[in-house]
Amino acid sequence: MTRSLADEPAAAALRPTVKTRTALADGRDLFYFDEPDTHADRAGAIDRRPLPASDPTSIMRHDRLLDEWVTIASHRQTRTYLPPDDECPLCPSSYGHAAGERDRLSEIPATDYDVAVFENRFPSFALPSRRPDAEGDPFFATAPGTGRCEVVCFTADHNAAFSSLTPARTRTVIDAWVDRTEQLSLVPQIEQVFCFENRGEEIGVTLRHPHGQIYGYPYVTPRTRRMLDSARTYRDTTGGNLFVDIVAEETASDRVVVQSPHWIAFVPFAARWPVEVHLYPRRQVPDLPALDAAERLDLSHVYLEVLRRMEAVHPPDPPYIAAWHQAPVRLDRDLGYLHLELFSIRRAPGKLKYLAGSESAMGAFINDVQPEHVANSMRTATPDLGDIERDRAELGSAQ
Amino acid sequence: MTRSLADEPAAAALRPTVKTRTALADGRDLFYFDEPDTHADRAGAIDRRPLPASDPTSIMRHDRLLDEWVTIASHRQTRTYLPPDDECPLCPSSYGHAAGERDRLSEIPATDYDVAVFENRFPSFALPSRRPDAEGDPFFATAPGTGRCEVVCFTADHNAAFSSLTPARTRTVIDAWVDRTEQLSLVPQIEQVFCFENRGEEIGVTLRHPHGQIYGYPYVTPRTRRMLDSARTYRDTTGGNLFVDIVAEETASDRVVVQSPHWIAFVPFAARWPVEVHLYPRRQVPDLPALDAAERLDLSHVYLEVLRRMEAVHPPDPPYIAAWHQAPVRLDRDLGYLHLELFSIRRAPGKLKYLAGSESAMGAFINDVQPEHVANSMRTATPDLGDIERDRAELGSAQ
Repeated sequence: MTRSLADEPAAAALRPTVKTRTALADGRDLFYFDEPDTHADRAGAIDRRPLPASDPTSIMRHDRLLDEWVTIASHRQTRTYLPPDDECPLCPSSYGHAAGERDRLSEIPATDYDVAVFENRFPSFALPSRRPDAEGDPFFATAPGTGRCEVVCFTADHNAAFSSLTPARTRTVIDAWVDRTEQLSLVPQIEQVFCFENRGEEIGVTLRHPHGQIYGYPYVTPRTRRMLDSARTYRDTTGGNLFVDIVAEETASDRVVVQSPHWIAFVPFAARWPVEVHLYPRRQVPDLPALDAAERLDLSHVYLEVLRRMEAVHPPDPPYIAAWHQAPVRLDRDLGYLHLELFSIRRAPGKLKYLAGSESAMGAFINDVQPEHVANSMRTATPDLGDIERDRAELGSAQ
Repeated sequence: MTRSLADEPAAAALRPTVKTRTALADGRDLFYFDEPDTHADRAGAIDRRPLPASDPTSIMRHDRLLDEWVTIASHRQTRTYLPPDDECPLCPSSYGHAAGERDRLSEIPATDYDVAVFENRFPSFALPSRRPDAEGDPFFATAPGTGRCEVVCFTADHNAAFSSLTPARTRTVIDAWVDRTEQLSLVPQIEQVFCFENRGEEIGVTLRHPHGQIYGYPYVTPRTRRMLDSARTYRDTTGGNLFVDIVAEETASDRVVVQSPHWIAFVPFAARWPVEVHLYPRRQVPDLPALDAAERLDLSHVYLEVLRRMEAVHPPDPPYIAAWHQAPVRLDRDLGYLHLELFSIRRAPGKLKYLAGSESAMGAFINDVQPEHVANSMRTATPDLGDIERDRAELGSAQ
């Protein structure tokens, strides 16, 4: 079940990522995304663990007052929680060959990998749903927690961070995001695909291995819906696209962090977090698959640069959330505008920004940090960008 | 400037709380709320600290995409952060009388107090605002961070918790909340009054002394606005009040935690947090000042009981946010319905619920805990309620 993404014109010019599809012992999907110089029989690595079938039982409940769906996923209470490093489920498996040596069987049966994506064993949403259909109770409406949750392992190196990846590996991750977005968008029950990374125990990451996640939601999420509502009102009033006009205004502001031929990164005017950067392609596209080859190549440089500039301002290893906002799969694709919202909850060395009463209960954010100040700090920071510059020069993305 | 609240019929029947207004060295307001058996010259305690004038410079910025105001309050970065216990700014002051003994001067000049309320030295909102008027830039609108932030010290005992207060002290806190809500509602620039408690370092509390806060916002906050929008749509469609009908439905559910003559506490159908309880008066009122004497007395028992039941389910000292949702000061007072939303972020011993990618970026909450299960645990918990029962029997609130 190996196929090359070489037929995809965008990525092909550079480097055909090789995708291999296989399955874990309990039937969950596992995909390897390998770089062209990696030669390995991924499909030959078999998951030998005696895994019981995964039994997700999520149900969504409608909050009538806030008009938002909340997902109740009680099976997640028992999920793996900060395991010791030698029991990391995201490291490659290892097989004892000497007498007395034990096999170390993880979620990845292969003994190495570049990028691996698999279905979460403790998913918030799953397909097919075993739950009954939605019930239209006027106060207590429910719906099945249908959808998909995937884990994206960025590297086999347990101690790495996304910011320490090479530009080439970053492109492989981007290829994986693109592929998974494309594939999940074909699922009739999925309305929105969300690629993201939670980084750091301070924001609740339960596995230290560098990884991200992909959620395929069965509905358009509240924050996305609100942005699209604003964009719709704006279009009805002005005829323009709100995202496009905001990007133009921010590009002319003193909050720009990084500019490249195809991307612009800025601290937004009304930033909620101590460090918050929004990264937009200069061309309005609905989602990651809509990026062309030049935009993806450029992204592999710009994204690393933004992460390293954030890290330089808040060393070491700042806790962060990196969230790709993609247009819904079927609705409002003309209104939406792909962008990344990256933020750290570290407000000063050893101090975190918490969502306490005002934010959690009232939705009223108080930010202690001046957005222009953050932009300036990130702009003037001097992280090591040597590998990015070399890669950029070699591959010519900066032209 | 001492006045008794005895002229207020509600509280008077029971116990006239005595309010004393005074000022701190930098001009900030300080109020003492004393119980009737406390006899002390609060106004005589003078703040002798050489405090520079407080200089808040908050400005609100409008997030055009989410249509929400965000407050930028950079002066708060330098606020007091987890001081050692013997430098707690919320403990009463002490004055060295022996040779070599130093004065310990805190935010409370008195050597003891029952409940004390003062203006926050590092406020998110302040009056009068030194900021320029709102600017109507179509993309980057600003408004002055006008409003008020007060700190409510529940007890002089540094090591207490709200749950360990007596019912009598709880009534004094309620009287303080009522008084401050009434007074702040009179300020023309304030549109919403929010009384709340953040408890626990895990949610970012920077002072350990038991205390809450009151925010007077210059606008109706996003979450309140969303609830009122739902209530308005519901009234337009059905003629009924959404809150009233939800309370009736929840009262008949298996999620009830505590019922009393005047109050009902339940885990909401679509709970977002591992422990979440909503507490409503049975009679629809817009805010705390609208409660009558019997409702306030009953609240002093029920609130303590709910806190202790939560603590019994997640011992010891669970981190929580207790948030009083009051109707806006001027708008939609007929639509709103006073209630408390209490939640803990502890999902299991040693494990917290974090707002990571799905919640923070998408607004899509995933809750690992079944609401009916939480309600049952809290209902069947057996915390010590002896003092509450005795007080209730003595004062007859349970009839």
